[in-house]
Amino acid sequence: MKIELASSYGFCFGVKRAIKIAENAKDASTIGPLIHNNEEINRLEQNFNVKTLDGINDLTDEKKAIIRTHGITKADLESLKNSGINIIDATCPFVTKPQQICEKMSDEGYDIVIFGDENHPEIKGVKSYAKGKVFVVLDESELENIRLSQRVAVLSQTTRKFEKFSQIVNFLMLKVKEVRVFNTICNATFENQEATRELSTRADVMIIIGGKNSSNTKQLYYISKQFCDDSYLIENEAELEKSWFEAKNLCGVAAGASTPDWVIQRVVDKINLIKGEM
Amino acid sequence: MKIELASSYGFCFGVKRAIKIAENAKDASTIGPLIHNNEEINRLEQNFNVKTLDGINDLTDEKKAIIRTHGITKADLESLKNSGINIIDATCPFVTKPQQICEKMSDEGYDIVIFGDENHPEIKGVKSYAKGKVFVVLDESELENIRLSQRVAVLSQTTRKFEKFSQIVNFLMLKVKEVRVFNTICNATFENQEATRELSTRADVMIIIGGKNSSNTKQLYYISKQFCDDSYLIENEAELEKSWFEAKNLCGVAAGASTPDWVIQRVVDKINLIKGEM
Repeated sequence: MKIELASSYGFCFGVKRAIKIAENAKDASTIGPLIHNNEEINRLEQNFNVKTLDGINDLTDEKKAIIRTHGITKADLESLKNSGINIIDATCPFVTKPQQICEKMSDEGYDIVIFGDENHPEIKGVKSYAKGKVFVVLDESELENIRLSQRVAVLSQTTRKFEKFSQIVNFLMLKVKEVRVFNTICNATFENQEATRELSTRADVMIIIGGKNSSNTKQLYYISKQFCDDSYLIENEAELEKSWFEAKNLCGVAAGASTPDWVIQRVVDKINLIKGEM
Repeated sequence: MKIELASSYGFCFGVKRAIKIAENAKDASTIGPLIHNNEEINRLEQNFNVKTLDGINDLTDEKKAIIRTHGITKADLESLKNSGINIIDATCPFVTKPQQICEKMSDEGYDIVIFGDENHPEIKGVKSYAKGKVFVVLDESELENIRLSQRVAVLSQTTRKFEKFSQIVNFLMLKVKEVRVFNTICNATFENQEATRELSTRADVMIIIGGKNSSNTKQLYYISKQFCDDSYLIENEAELEKSWFEAKNLCGVAAGASTPDWVIQRVVDKINLIKGEM
């Protein structure tokens, strides 16, 4: 069995940047998980004493608060500012952008449509910057019975699939006169998705590595599953099962934007070990 | 053989309005054909002495100039204004709109992409309102090697098919950060297209009536041809051929937005006559 890594995988610019920021902010606390990867969060706590709080209400006598890559709501940011705490902003710049777009378009009188998961922290943050009407949807059908203004601005969670975004835009084009489209799907996400797609069409088993709460990792898994039935989403090497690799010729490996190289390496080493035992 | 008219066909709002304007402008001259229908243009000349000029250069001692439904270029409009002639504007309001959008978006620094035929008078007019970069395309492939700004406004010739417009928008969404989409395809066009599509899936012969220089009529013909091999585009009843109707069960009839009811009626009468002879 051959093992092949996707041509694009793992850490994106925003995650690398956030980790660097956290490593330089010893003893700080992040408001929610810095990135959606427990392995890396544990490493930051062990090596740099960077703790993870559930939200701003859990702050007690902390001196430094790190804003996670996914950003926080405008209200939470205001509270932090008022509290006088030292704020260290690790929001991915590709997430700050949709926040700004949402605020500006709202100011200009557009209804806002956000393609994304309304329970995801990134989207909670982005949505909080809208002043007027804002709708968060995962599918265009959710807009069917909504009365929209004739001027709609539409943007996407950074980690979503382009095809669905484009379906939502098409739906809006038929419904309203002006659709102002901001393609806020980040390039790294797009590249990881394309690489996973390509590899999964050739592999007969696919291992997707990343946090199970990671939106972009889950997208990779869904894409892979479309082309390769035997696709598995794992957080670390302990989850690998020997039976997955029996009678397989090509094992593809892909990883989400928040998956550190050292976790990927451990998984690959373990697959090689299993392969040796077969 | 049954004869069935499409559930939506013929004259749109803009054409009806232009004809009313022309009928009230006896002895005037239009700058280019008022609408793309020779039958109706001849009627206007015979009954109201409304003549058709090729362009503003053909104006001599005319007192009144009618601007055609498709509009004219900004430069031509300026010349007319400077000449002191009495200008009667029969531009379809749904064409004035993309002219205004083109000018405004250009002013705001957007590159402009127009989906349409650059040789069509409507598009010559709309395009003339752009001050910066403007690209007229019939297919997204024409944009592949063009260096676009990250902010693009896109609009359509009023008579085009939505599916292709949406493909162009999708292409742009992948290429630039902001795509400001103005769906300027007019409703009447869209409704005539949908009705033609529906009827052509059921009919075994389709007669599309309208000017052979009429963009919207040609679109109806292309749509019809997709679903019904035996589709024919004719300008009047003289073009009908008996052989088209042999062994057919359902004859569908559709007509472009510039096709007058009296022409449609003559065609239907003639098909009935042919039917009687079979």
